[in-house]
Amino acid sequence: MSRIDGRTPEQLRPVTIERGWSKHAEGSVLISFGDTKVFCTASVTEGVPRWRKGSGEGWVTAEYSMLPRSTNTRGDRESVRGKIGGRTHEISRLIGRSLRAVIDYKALGEITVVLDCDVLQADGGTRTAAVTGAYVALADAVAWAQAKKLIKPGRKPLTGTVAAVSVGIVDGTPLLDLRYEEDVRAETDMNVVCTGDGRFVEVQGTAEAEPFDRKELNALLDLATGGCADLTALQLAALAPTQPIG
Amino acid sequence: MSRIDGRTPEQLRPVTIERGWSKHAEGSVLISFGDTKVFCTASVTEGVPRWRKGSGEGWVTAEYSMLPRSTNTRGDRESVRGKIGGRTHEISRLIGRSLRAVIDYKALGEITVVLDCDVLQADGGTRTAAVTGAYVALADAVAWAQAKKLIKPGRKPLTGTVAAVSVGIVDGTPLLDLRYEEDVRAETDMNVVCTGDGRFVEVQGTAEAEPFDRKELNALLDLATGGCADLTALQLAALAPTQPIG
Amino acid sequence: MSRIDGRTPEQLRPVTIERGWSKHAEGSVLISFGDTKVFCTASVTEGVPRWRKGSGEGWVTAEYSMLPRSTNTRGDRESVRGKIGGRTHEISRLIGRSLRAVIDYKALGEITVVLDCDVLQADGGTRTAAVTGAYVALADAVAWAQAKKLIKPGRKPLTGTVAAVSVGIVDGTPLLDLRYEEDVRAETDMNVVCTGDGRFVEVQGTAEAEPFDRKELNALLDLATGGCADLTALQLAALAPTQPIG
Amino acid sequence: MSRIDGRTPEQLRPVTIERGWSKHAEGSVLISFGDTKVFCTASVTEGVPRWRKGSGEGWVTAEYSMLPRSTNTRGDRESVRGKIGGRTHEISRLIGRSLRAVIDYKALGEITVVLDCDVLQADGGTRTAAVTGAYVALADAVAWAQAKKLIKPGRKPLTGTVAAVSVGIVDGTPLLDLRYEEDVRAETDMNVVCTGDGRFVEVQGTAEAEPFDRKELNALLDLATGGCADLTALQLAALAPTQPIG
Amino acid sequence: MSRIDGRTPEQLRPVTIERGWSKHAEGSVLISFGDTKVFCTASVTEGVPRWRKGSGEGWVTAEYSMLPRSTNTRGDRESVRGKIGGRTHEISRLIGRSLRAVIDYKALGEITVVLDCDVLQADGGTRTAAVTGAYVALADAVAWAQAKKLIKPGRKPLTGTVAAVSVGIVDGTPLLDLRYEEDVRAETDMNVVCTGDGRFVEVQGTAEAEPFDRKELNALLDLATGGCADLTALQLAALAPTQPIG
Amino acid sequence: MSRIDGRTPEQLRPVTIERGWSKHAEGSVLISFGDTKVFCTASVTEGVPRWRKGSGEGWVTAEYSMLPRSTNTRGDRESVRGKIGGRTHEISRLIGRSLRAVIDYKALGEITVVLDCDVLQADGGTRTAAVTGAYVALADAVAWAQAKKLIKPGRKPLTGTVAAVSVGIVDGTPLLDLRYEEDVRAETDMNVVCTGDGRFVEVQGTAEAEPFDRKELNALLDLATGGCADLTALQLAALAPTQPIG
Repeated sequence: MSRIDGRTPEQLRPVTIERGWSKHAEGSVLISFGDTKVFCTASVTEGVPRWRKGSGEGWVTAEYSMLPRSTNTRGDRESVRGKIGGRTHEISRLIGRSLRAVIDYKALGEITVVLDCDVLQADGGTRTAAVTGAYVALADAVAWAQAKKLIKPGRKPLTGTVAAVSVGIVDGTPLLDLRYEEDVRAETDMNVVCTGDGRFVEVQGTAEAEPFDRKELNALLDLATGGCADLTALQLAALAPTQPIG
Repeated sequence: MSRIDGRTPEQLRPVTIERGWSKHAEGSVLISFGDTKVFCTASVTEGVPRWRKGSGEGWVTAEYSMLPRSTNTRGDRESVRGKIGGRTHEISRLIGRSLRAVIDYKALGEITVVLDCDVLQADGGTRTAAVTGAYVALADAVAWAQAKKLIKPGRKPLTGTVAAVSVGIVDGTPLLDLRYEEDVRAETDMNVVCTGDGRFVEVQGTAEAEPFDRKELNALLDLATGGCADLTALQLAALAPTQPIG
Repeated sequence: MSRIDGRTPEQLRPVTIERGWSKHAEGSVLISFGDTKVFCTASVTEGVPRWRKGSGEGWVTAEYSMLPRSTNTRGDRESVRGKIGGRTHEISRLIGRSLRAVIDYKALGEITVVLDCDVLQADGGTRTAAVTGAYVALADAVAWAQAKKLIKPGRKPLTGTVAAVSVGIVDGTPLLDLRYEEDVRAETDMNVVCTGDGRFVEVQGTAEAEPFDRKELNALLDLATGGCADLTALQLAALAPTQPIG
Repeated sequence: MSRIDGRTPEQLRPVTIERGWSKHAEGSVLISFGDTKVFCTASVTEGVPRWRKGSGEGWVTAEYSMLPRSTNTRGDRESVRGKIGGRTHEISRLIGRSLRAVIDYKALGEITVVLDCDVLQADGGTRTAAVTGAYVALADAVAWAQAKKLIKPGRKPLTGTVAAVSVGIVDGTPLLDLRYEEDVRAETDMNVVCTGDGRFVEVQGTAEAEPFDRKELNALLDLATGGCADLTALQLAALAPTQPIG
Repeated sequence: MSRIDGRTPEQLRPVTIERGWSKHAEGSVLISFGDTKVFCTASVTEGVPRWRKGSGEGWVTAEYSMLPRSTNTRGDRESVRGKIGGRTHEISRLIGRSLRAVIDYKALGEITVVLDCDVLQADGGTRTAAVTGAYVALADAVAWAQAKKLIKPGRKPLTGTVAAVSVGIVDGTPLLDLRYEEDVRAETDMNVVCTGDGRFVEVQGTAEAEPFDRKELNALLDLATGGCADLTALQLAALAPTQPIG
Repeated sequence: MSRIDGRTPEQLRPVTIERGWSKHAEGSVLISFGDTKVFCTASVTEGVPRWRKGSGEGWVTAEYSMLPRSTNTRGDRESVRGKIGGRTHEISRLIGRSLRAVIDYKALGEITVVLDCDVLQADGGTRTAAVTGAYVALADAVAWAQAKKLIKPGRKPLTGTVAAVSVGIVDGTPLLDLRYEEDVRAETDMNVVCTGDGRFVEVQGTAEAEPFDRKELNALLDLATGGCADLTALQLAALAPTQPIG
């Protein structure tokens, strides 16, 4: 089977990671997975939420949103509707958990980093692009806070890297990094978040049509692990000019 | 290692499934997984949401909620706060997707079934108890609609059964069906939804502390598959006196 | 006239009061007035609302809610609609006022008791069942707080008991404790809250069809006073095994 | 005992009813009970709410609100807080029910009358002033609709008149039409809505401090019945120049 | 061209300013511009919003609202809809800015004045009547606070007066103080807020149909300046009996 | 006086207008005024809002929003707060009115164009950049609809062009196109929207500190008219390669 854009099943779309896209944010990245474009900013503030005060530990959280016309037909703004939809909540929580998996709260100290992931254009895989881009923005923000001595000298709040990719079974074939057209046709859809050392942070698989068996699950996990490794390399390359990890 | 309640790692808590708990609902179940008690009702209405009208296909959806004092400390009502939290949204969506995985929309025809899963008492695993109980309430509601001829004679809207269980790694040991005390200590937490034939509908694994590797993932999937098979047997037994599946 | 369920006009439906229905709450009761079932929990927290701090006085408040399928046709969740309806507000306020009528705030000291009354199944008289059940849950919570020394030794925050019942005129006949079918046909509907010594805490009468005259009002008050006395006896019996009042 | 403003226990405050206070509304009244001033408008629209369409019957509803500085200290606007409080809901519902008690829906036909009761200045008894004033605005709106032939010739949608007054026990003495200073000191507080022929539409009594007995209840009902009769006479006088009832 | 009510193009409608319309508020005014009637209250509280605490400076803010039937057809209450519309927000902000233009925050000291402008009847120019009336209520509130020593002796928080008027081009003719019928036909609509010395605080001009040129703009500004001067004189006259400015 | 970035008082910041920034939207523009960057999309849908149906006329509306970290310190998302702030409402309305000023609704026919203006980075003048960019996106969307025959052949819905700029008085000097640092120091702040033929669509001047006199107002209007003319030329140049106006 050949994919609509000529990729092999285990091939990522072209990925670009542009750092420094905001003059205000402590870290900022425009990441693209093909036509999916997500603008990720990392905002550092001193202090932590009330329930964490005095713990000596920091906090990292995320908010995900789609611009109204990031999709093929315009969606209503959640600010206008007055409430956040379930999908938005779910993805915001996923991004936050994924990044917290590589944070040493004690090393971070009592500062908060908020990752804002705003989808400028959507073509499948927005949440995985968001996790992958947000990690780079987070790394820049941590470096900024280290330089500003908001993080104590010698402390390394980042315990590793984190990246995410979608996989799915389309017409019986497991595919990596689905475009929108593939995504809507997938029988099974899975989002996988991995650390740079190849372990799992999140595995979220859903049968969209037929339930899937253990063999299919294994094939998808294999694909995802490979894709995350590729993304990790791209993250490190993007960060390389200026920044060692941690 | 022995568990706090003396169970073996691969043992479910005592599960009870009481049908007919509401005189109003077309299907209703009080399900308990140990001290976790969820009240599930299935409400049948003729017609479908606007976006589905004229398709000839039905719809199944779910809403999950916790009573304010179902937990150890009282939580604010979401109706009083005026918005639904991300966790509630996420679980409602999970339950709906899980049940839709065993629905043949064409066979259902243009009727809607709403599953309400209200947690009366929480002790870990509320979402998996909700999926498992809601399936039984759904089966009763489908039988009711068949008897009332709201579903055309000979049609079988249920294509199988569905059950769910939580698994997790606690102190390095994979455990089935976590109680709250185990859940808060788990390094990895996974919810798995299976069909009665042992295939997967949802696999949602999250590293709460350390990322998990493929071997740990496999151990958790083994446990979950076994637990779901046990729950399927209990569902069938509960439904047996009156009702064949489908 | 004979009533649909064969009761005499001045007869209550079968009433059951089950204590200890929650392992988490400081007091909890499942009360039924016939097919009306309300789950009442009492939650004790140290401290009082801001406007009461430093007064040395406690606070008691209540929240009432109906599960979506507690009624014959499913109602929308107020949490989903994002606001609480007028009827819910009104009943929550009524329950709170009724219980505060038998509270000595000074004796209670600076603790707060929240009564949650969730209707699991509705068949008329949900607010009166809620008041009657909430009193028992409150009594258990007060006893718990006394045992925990959250209330100073020797202090008796409960100055009496409180119970509630509905009465109405149906086809010209005054009836006690209306079922739903009677309630919708009532020309006049009244909810009465009494203390155990037979005095009134709340009298809320409404002409649903024809205005009512003083004689009809008197007949309803007579019925209600008798019904509340019967309920008081049932409350005391339910509390008897373990607990003297106050 | 002499009252702060020199009234006898069974005496109303000076009551004024000014009709025609709005050039836009079909009926409008500025009513004052002493320093309590409520602006009542009646708005007529053709058609009825969806659930009543095609019934041939009309609808009457009411909304009550207080201006932020109608009270001694400024209150937040409910529009700014984004939700309506329980008290507002409760009073809006009371006013609507009270007026519907004297409406023949069939005679009204499929039109809707909305009564808006906005408190310009509050000094106790705002809900009873609102009911009493709204009746006069409603009568004017009905007359307007009759003149415009929106109501069929010969039909009399008003089956009677309705007025309301507060009563309470202050320092052991039953008093009519409480001012704010009296209201806050009342042991028992009751709002009574009567038709012009002396029957009851609503009786809402609440023990603010001590529960009340049957004798006290009777004394309050006697006072209220007298007060409502006086208010009925004032309503008829206000309407007399231009309009027979019904 | 002669105007519908016989005014010349540069003539205001009859303006009345009645002070002391509320017994509760520290300043209160019922202002009418013809049939437009706005009730303005000024509420003084000690203290300032959190972001201003400790600055030694005061704060002045405003809220505008229309009663539901202040207009020709009834509008929904913003409290019922649960959100404030854009127009309401915009006008509230305009009134607040206009009044703050003549406030010396240092002289005011840490007190807050809230101006509530509630439109009882609308016939065009509600926002300009609100600004003009609110100024008088503010002056009374400042005098009250001076008398109560909430403002330090000798301090003059008011640095001048402020008034507002609408102007517009109707059928090619610039007109002052538009009535509703004129307003809906205006090609250009402008609201101008001036200080008593003839300078501008706000100039808000909008082309409703055709864009306007510099010459038309100048004609409108000339009209508005004259109208504001007339209104300033009326404000001073209303305040004259009791109060020097500042 | 020399400006912080070396501009002369009547000089715009570098302006860039990039078309075709979205693959989904019918028109899309990334516009920058110096460091202010606004992403404008135009979405075309067949049909119009309910109140306009059957009129044969189209509709154009706009929504403005700022990304949380478009500013120097992160702001809360309006979707999370659950309501849209006054400033957002005000600017959305301004953009919509400005674009409607150059629309011939009849020529447009019953289609709706929604302009979404999302601020990616803010450095003063976001609303004027939004109007200026939205016009170009609108022109592209109109051309698209003409090509798709959603607009009848030969009809020209655009009656002209529209652009906007801010002006203000800083340290006594009138300046064009204020950066954020200039804006916060401005004594007077004005936003002006002009058509391409030099007439005014909106003039919104506000005294931030001192009221301004007629001479200052004239100086600001002169500056703004020149700035808008420069922006019009840039809009036409951006559209030139592919598109005549109208």
